[in-house]
Amino acid sequence: MSDAAIHPAVLLAQDLIRCPSVTPAEGGALTLLASHLAAAGFSVERVAFSAPGTPDVDNLYARYGTGAPLLVFAGHTDVVPTGDIARWRHDPFAGEIVDGRLYGRGACDMKGGVAAMVTAATDFIAAHPSFGGSIAFLLTGDEEGPAVNGTVKLLEWAKARGEQFSHCILGEPTNPASLGDMIKIGRRGSLTGRLTVTGRQGHVGYPHLALNPLPTLLRALEALTGPALDDGTAHFDPSNLEVTTVDVGNPATNLIPGEAKAVFNVRFNDRWTLDSLKAEIEGRLARARREGDAEVSLTFDYSNAVAFLTNPGPFVDIVSAAVEAVTGRRPALSTTGGTSDARFIQACCPVVEFGPVGGTMHQVDEFVAVDDLASLTAIYRGALERYFGP
Amino acid sequence: MSDAAIHPAVLLAQDLIRCPSVTPAEGGALTLLASHLAAAGFSVERVAFSAPGTPDVDNLYARYGTGAPLLVFAGHTDVVPTGDIARWRHDPFAGEIVDGRLYGRGACDMKGGVAAMVTAATDFIAAHPSFGGSIAFLLTGDEEGPAVNGTVKLLEWAKARGEQFSHCILGEPTNPASLGDMIKIGRRGSLTGRLTVTGRQGHVGYPHLALNPLPTLLRALEALTGPALDDGTAHFDPSNLEVTTVDVGNPATNLIPGEAKAVFNVRFNDRWTLDSLKAEIEGRLARARREGDAEVSLTFDYSNAVAFLTNPGPFVDIVSAAVEAVTGRRPALSTTGGTSDARFIQACCPVVEFGPVGGTMHQVDEFVAVDDLASLTAIYRGALERYFGP
Repeated sequence: MSDAAIHPAVLLAQDLIRCPSVTPAEGGALTLLASHLAAAGFSVERVAFSAPGTPDVDNLYARYGTGAPLLVFAGHTDVVPTGDIARWRHDPFAGEIVDGRLYGRGACDMKGGVAAMVTAATDFIAAHPSFGGSIAFLLTGDEEGPAVNGTVKLLEWAKARGEQFSHCILGEPTNPASLGDMIKIGRRGSLTGRLTVTGRQGHVGYPHLALNPLPTLLRALEALTGPALDDGTAHFDPSNLEVTTVDVGNPATNLIPGEAKAVFNVRFNDRWTLDSLKAEIEGRLARARREGDAEVSLTFDYSNAVAFLTNPGPFVDIVSAAVEAVTGRRPALSTTGGTSDARFIQACCPVVEFGPVGGTMHQVDEFVAVDDLASLTAIYRGALERYFGP
Repeated sequence: MSDAAIHPAVLLAQDLIRCPSVTPAEGGALTLLASHLAAAGFSVERVAFSAPGTPDVDNLYARYGTGAPLLVFAGHTDVVPTGDIARWRHDPFAGEIVDGRLYGRGACDMKGGVAAMVTAATDFIAAHPSFGGSIAFLLTGDEEGPAVNGTVKLLEWAKARGEQFSHCILGEPTNPASLGDMIKIGRRGSLTGRLTVTGRQGHVGYPHLALNPLPTLLRALEALTGPALDDGTAHFDPSNLEVTTVDVGNPATNLIPGEAKAVFNVRFNDRWTLDSLKAEIEGRLARARREGDAEVSLTFDYSNAVAFLTNPGPFVDIVSAAVEAVTGRRPALSTTGGTSDARFIQACCPVVEFGPVGGTMHQVDEFVAVDDLASLTAIYRGALERYFGP
C-alpha cells in the first residue's frame, strides 16, 4: 500500500505511535498534534503542571471559534508501558500496518481515537470555516499515570480562563468487539489499595527465629478476593477487585523475607461510595487476621474515583445517530470498563465516550483496524455535523 | 590488648575475615590457610572446579600423615553477602575486636571455626609429630553458593586419589546460645521449588479479557503452606515449608499482570525422600487447581538435599566428651537448622558438626566471642587427643 492510499487519520495515528509517550513522557505526541491543530486554525496552548511526589506533565488545550455551543473533544496521548518487549511480534513504537491492522502501544488506547478526532475536526472546519460555534481539544499526558497533573488541572485552568464547555466527546476505546457496539455513558469508580506486611527476616532452617510476612499477606489477599463485592446494579456491572502485583524481591532461597508488599485495585459501581468500600476492605482484612500474624499496613492511593453516570438525552442521541449512520447499528449505552478522564469532565459538562475497539488495549501487540479509523473519523464528523447543524 | 595477648585462633580468624571471600570469590582465604598448613607439615593441594552455568570455585585439600585412621576437618571459607553495608556498625571485612567480640562477615559462619580447627590441628601435630594416624582438611569456597563446584567434587577427587576418610568433624556454627549447647548429628533435607503462573495481561476494567495469574498462585501457595507436612520424627523436628519470595513487578495499578512467580523452600526430615516430598507438593498443587485457572509450571532446583543422620556411637561420644571437658556441659545431639556440606560428606564417612555460637550468622554485625574461639580450639584439640590417643 502506498502512503497515498492511507487515510489521513491512519497516517496521524502512525506518527503518534512513533512518539514514545509512555506515561508521563510527552514523547513528541502533543507537539505533533499542536502543529496539526494550529495549521487548521486552532489557537493552541501548551500547559505543563507539576506537584510534589508526582511527575511533571505536559498538556494541550486548543480552541477554534469563539461562539457557543462549545463542543470539546477530550483525549490523552500517554500510553501504558509495553511490558516484556520480547513478547511483542510488532515493534510497539513503529506504527507497522500488517493485514489491515495498525500495531503499536496506544493504537487503540488512545492514539487512534485522538487521530480520528483531530482529522474529523480539521475536515469539518475546512468544510464549514464559519459554523458559528466552537470546537476545543483537551489533550493530556497523564491519563495512564497518577492523573494529578493532567485533565483535573487542565479543567481548572480552562475554567479560570472562562471557558464554558457545552458537551464533551471522549475518544477512549469503548467498543468490545466491533465499531458501533457501545457508547459509554458512565464509569465505575476505582480504588487502589497498598498492603505492606512486615515480619522478621531469618534463615529458613530456623523459622522460629523469623516471622515470614507471606502467610499473613496470602491470607489477607484471599480475604480480599473472596466473596464477590456485589451482583451489579441497574446501570452497572458487578464491582470487581484485582490484585495487580505482589512483590518481595528476595533472591536467596534460604532466607525468610522480612517484608512483602501487594497492590490491589477495585472497580466499583454505584452500590458503593469510596468510604463504604474502604470500610468493607478494612473489615475483610480485620476478619482474616490471626494470632501471631505479621504486621499489616494498608494505604489507599489519592487518585481514587467515584462511580458516575451521564443520563441519556439529546446529546447522547446525536452521538448514537452518528454511530448508527456509519455502522448501521444503534450502539448500546454502557457503563462498563475502566475509569477515564470522563470522571473529571462530567463535573463540567455532559460527556459521552466513543472510540475504537478496545480488545487489545494494555496488551502486547495492541492494534486498531485501519478501516475502523476511517469509520471512526466519519462518525466524529457526523457528530459534528449533527451537533452544529440546522 | 596487644597482639601478643590474642589467641592464635583469633588472629587467624581476623586474617580470614579480612579476606573478602563473598561466595564464590576466594578472596585470599584459602591461600592464607594453605601457608599455615604447609608450615605445619601438611601436603597441600589447591583444586579448582568449574561447570557450565555456575561460578568457578577454588578449594583446598591438605593431609598430614599417611597412616590410618584419617580424621578429616571440613569447612568453608566463602561467606554470604553483607546485605546493606550501611546497616553494619562494624566493617564486615575489618575483623574488629570490640568488648570481647570479633566482628565480621563469616566470624561465626565459619571462618571462626576454620581458624580454631587449623590452630588445634597444627598445635596437636607440634606436640605429637608422629601420632601414627592422619589428619586432613577439606576446605571449600562453594558452601554458601550453588554447592556444585565445592565439597561434592572435592570428595570425588579425593576418592579418585584413594583417600579413605575414617571420620569427619565439620566446624559449622552449631550452638544456638552458648558454646557446648549442641552437636549436630544429622540435618534435615532441603528442597527448593519455583512456581511460575502464566495468565493473560489486560486492563483491570476489563477483567473478562484478561486472566490474572495471582488468584491461581495465591491458592497454590495456600495449599502448599496449609496442613503441616508432618509432626516430626524420632530424631527430627517437623518438616517446614516457607514461601521465600513472590514477585510480579507490575508498577501499573490499572494493569492485570500476565505472569507471577513464587519460590518456596522445604526443610524436611527422614519421613520424606526427595521423591515422596515432590509427589506431595505436586499433589497439593493438583488438588488446589480449579476450572479456569491460569497455567502453573513447577520446577525444582538442582541443589536439593536429602535428610541424613549419623547414629550416636563411639565417634559422637569422643566429640561430646571433648566438648564437656572444656565447657562442663554434655551437648545435645541435634538435627535442627539448615543444610551443610555434611550432607555430602556423610556418604563417605560418619560426620558430626560442632562449631561456634551461630546466633548472628547471615545477619548484620555477625560476630564470634573471642573467648569462644579459644575454647573451641581446646575442644578440637581434645577431640584429636581422644581420637588418636591410646
